[in-house]
Amino acid sequence: MEFNIATIKGDGIGVDVTDAAMAVIGAAQRRVGGFSILFHEVDAGAAYYRETGRDISPEAERAARELDAILLGAIGLPTVRHEDGTEITPHLRLREEFQLYAGVRPVKAYANTPQRLADPRARSIDFIVLRECTEGLFYSAATHKRKGIANDDEVQDILRITRPTTEKLHDFAFHLARKRKERGGKGRVTCVDKSNVFRSMAFFRKIFDERAVAFPDIRADHNYIDAQALDLVRKPWEFDVMVMENMFGDILSDLGGGLVGGMGIASCAEIGDAHGLFQPAHGSAPDIMGEDKANPLAAILSGALMLDYLADRSGNETLVAAAELINDTVAAAFEANRIRPMEYGGEMGTKAVTREL
Amino acid sequence: MEFNIATIKGDGIGVDVTDAAMAVIGAAQRRVGGFSILFHEVDAGAAYYRETGRDISPEAERAARELDAILLGAIGLPTVRHEDGTEITPHLRLREEFQLYAGVRPVKAYANTPQRLADPRARSIDFIVLRECTEGLFYSAATHKRKGIANDDEVQDILRITRPTTEKLHDFAFHLARKRKERGGKGRVTCVDKSNVFRSMAFFRKIFDERAVAFPDIRADHNYIDAQALDLVRKPWEFDVMVMENMFGDILSDLGGGLVGGMGIASCAEIGDAHGLFQPAHGSAPDIMGEDKANPLAAILSGALMLDYLADRSGNETLVAAAELINDTVAAAFEANRIRPMEYGGEMGTKAVTREL
Ligand SMILES: CC(C)[C@H](C(=O)O)[C@@H](O)C(=O)O
Ligand SMILES: CC(C)[C@H](C(=O)O)[C@@H](O)C(=O)O
Repeated sequence: MEFNIATIKGDGIGVDVTDAAMAVIGAAQRRVGGFSILFHEVDAGAAYYRETGRDISPEAERAARELDAILLGAIGLPTVRHEDGTEITPHLRLREEFQLYAGVRPVKAYANTPQRLADPRARSIDFIVLRECTEGLFYSAATHKRKGIANDDEVQDILRITRPTTEKLHDFAFHLARKRKERGGKGRVTCVDKSNVFRSMAFFRKIFDERAVAFPDIRADHNYIDAQALDLVRKPWEFDVMVMENMFGDILSDLGGGLVGGMGIASCAEIGDAHGLFQPAHGSAPDIMGEDKANPLAAILSGALMLDYLADRSGNETLVAAAELINDTVAAAFEANRIRPMEYGGEMGTKAVTREL
Repeated sequence: MEFNIATIKGDGIGVDVTDAAMAVIGAAQRRVGGFSILFHEVDAGAAYYRETGRDISPEAERAARELDAILLGAIGLPTVRHEDGTEITPHLRLREEFQLYAGVRPVKAYANTPQRLADPRARSIDFIVLRECTEGLFYSAATHKRKGIANDDEVQDILRITRPTTEKLHDFAFHLARKRKERGGKGRVTCVDKSNVFRSMAFFRKIFDERAVAFPDIRADHNYIDAQALDLVRKPWEFDVMVMENMFGDILSDLGGGLVGGMGIASCAEIGDAHGLFQPAHGSAPDIMGEDKANPLAAILSGALMLDYLADRSGNETLVAAAELINDTVAAAFEANRIRPMEYGGEMGTKAVTREL
């Protein structure tokens, strides 16, 4: 079985870490067998925008639409911006164009990585921030060019919650919790909202409660976003899958990344009905681009998320084995203290970390 | 000099902690002299709503409008809600009615309180989340009954940033940083936004940059809200005053509270051009109401913020001394391990903690 991947290395360290992810995916594929992966490299990003005035190439658009998945490195350069000061963010448009509503952002504490919390239970942190990625406040992202009030006296943005997307999102959350439960997870979904204040959030929660009925094997509960931010520094080890609006998910996934040693291991999948985009949640860090310093683990773990996704879509079980191989190898290498990324004060650059996997 | 305070004890432990705050303010007033404070107790809250169908009494409205400040305990009971599922939140309307744009939420690590972070530098955490309190996403709070799309297929809320409010807010931030600098603070203001994605946030940042020019003695910088959430678990001791939109401030102030031992010491001031409201940032915890278990410190420290505010408005310096007396007494009592609230596993209830101050 052959899979074709639209591969956008993008800007800055996006290049370094995508190379690493492709290498590790290739190695896993050779060890497990039963499928093959072809990477089709296409252009997008801030550097591409500087040269062409477009943030994504027609080839990249087409490959993203037609191929089996999108693997992305990182996008953005501080000196290249749109006129209104906002950044070059073609991936926001890809999220919208392909309706990649389910943003899966795992937060997991590996051995020998910096833990911020004093409580030893923090070593067992293992949760998912499921961030809705097409609407919520990002409905108004500047790149979407919505009409609306915006002058020098007042600017408005709109937070939009729709029933169809929210139903799919919550179902995704429950299915994910069920899958994790089969692998030893807690079987819990927490709806994070601000339903005490906003009608949109009361609507979000109402749909959550409606969908929860179909998943009696999963514990469903709620928390307000402010209380959840507090709980994530107080008892993050209690959570499993948390589902929330786009902007809230952006904030809590970074907070989660901070708890377990930074964005260098923050992987990310953005999944829609017909497409999937996989990228590290970190930025392009142009200051260290090409210097073999970037931590490639976020990209590599995103690669594992991609294999899992392809397995789901194709029914090909060997892909699950390859994904597990990558995840287990990373966990074991941390456990044995064999990966010591520069990001954590270690001496290993991008290539050295990649070689250990 | 006499000051008259509209005092709304509200629901649940609001009663217990307001009594404590009044006692401590009274004691400070007697020790320092030079001013007197009269508390005028008026009704508002969920219990009042259950009885009357109104969330705030006409007397409370009038007292809040006419007297020198508003002291509030806590509002809300889980079983008393509006029909659309949102909570009874008259304080949101007070914020809007009196244009209490500057929400001051101090986060400070006291000795012998639970610190969540492993890094010993966390013991020096001392920052302010300055939360805009009248617009931003809360422009759409259900209680304000704005028109707009809200049906069973889609619900929209609006995030609104206006120039006049934002100018005042940023000026407030810089003045606050300056005042803190005189007392040994870092002299830094960080504008927390999401200006890389939203026009409203680019506008918020632009106004920040405009106003910063008038405060060359204060270091002004920016951070995106997601990165700031991460930085608050990685290096919170580096920050001083952070200024941000309403919803972002709600989230980061709770996160900050979590870092330094929970909402039991989370004080709060909400200040406008002509009014000020002072209340603990915690909820009404009806499960422990009247049981002498609540930690009164958030309310007591909010009382000190009120004295500081009255000093600013009246020019009466003895009020500053009284505020400092309360703050120093709390710090010293923690230092000497004389206050051990139940919230932190200690044996001291509301009254016992209050007696130590
Ligand atoms: C760069 C930015 C547009 C993006 C987002 O906010 O979605 C990033 O923060 C992320 O989390 O993927
Ligand atoms: C109770 C709620 C309306 C309120 C808010 O969100 O403003 C509270 O969380 C706060 O922080 O004061």
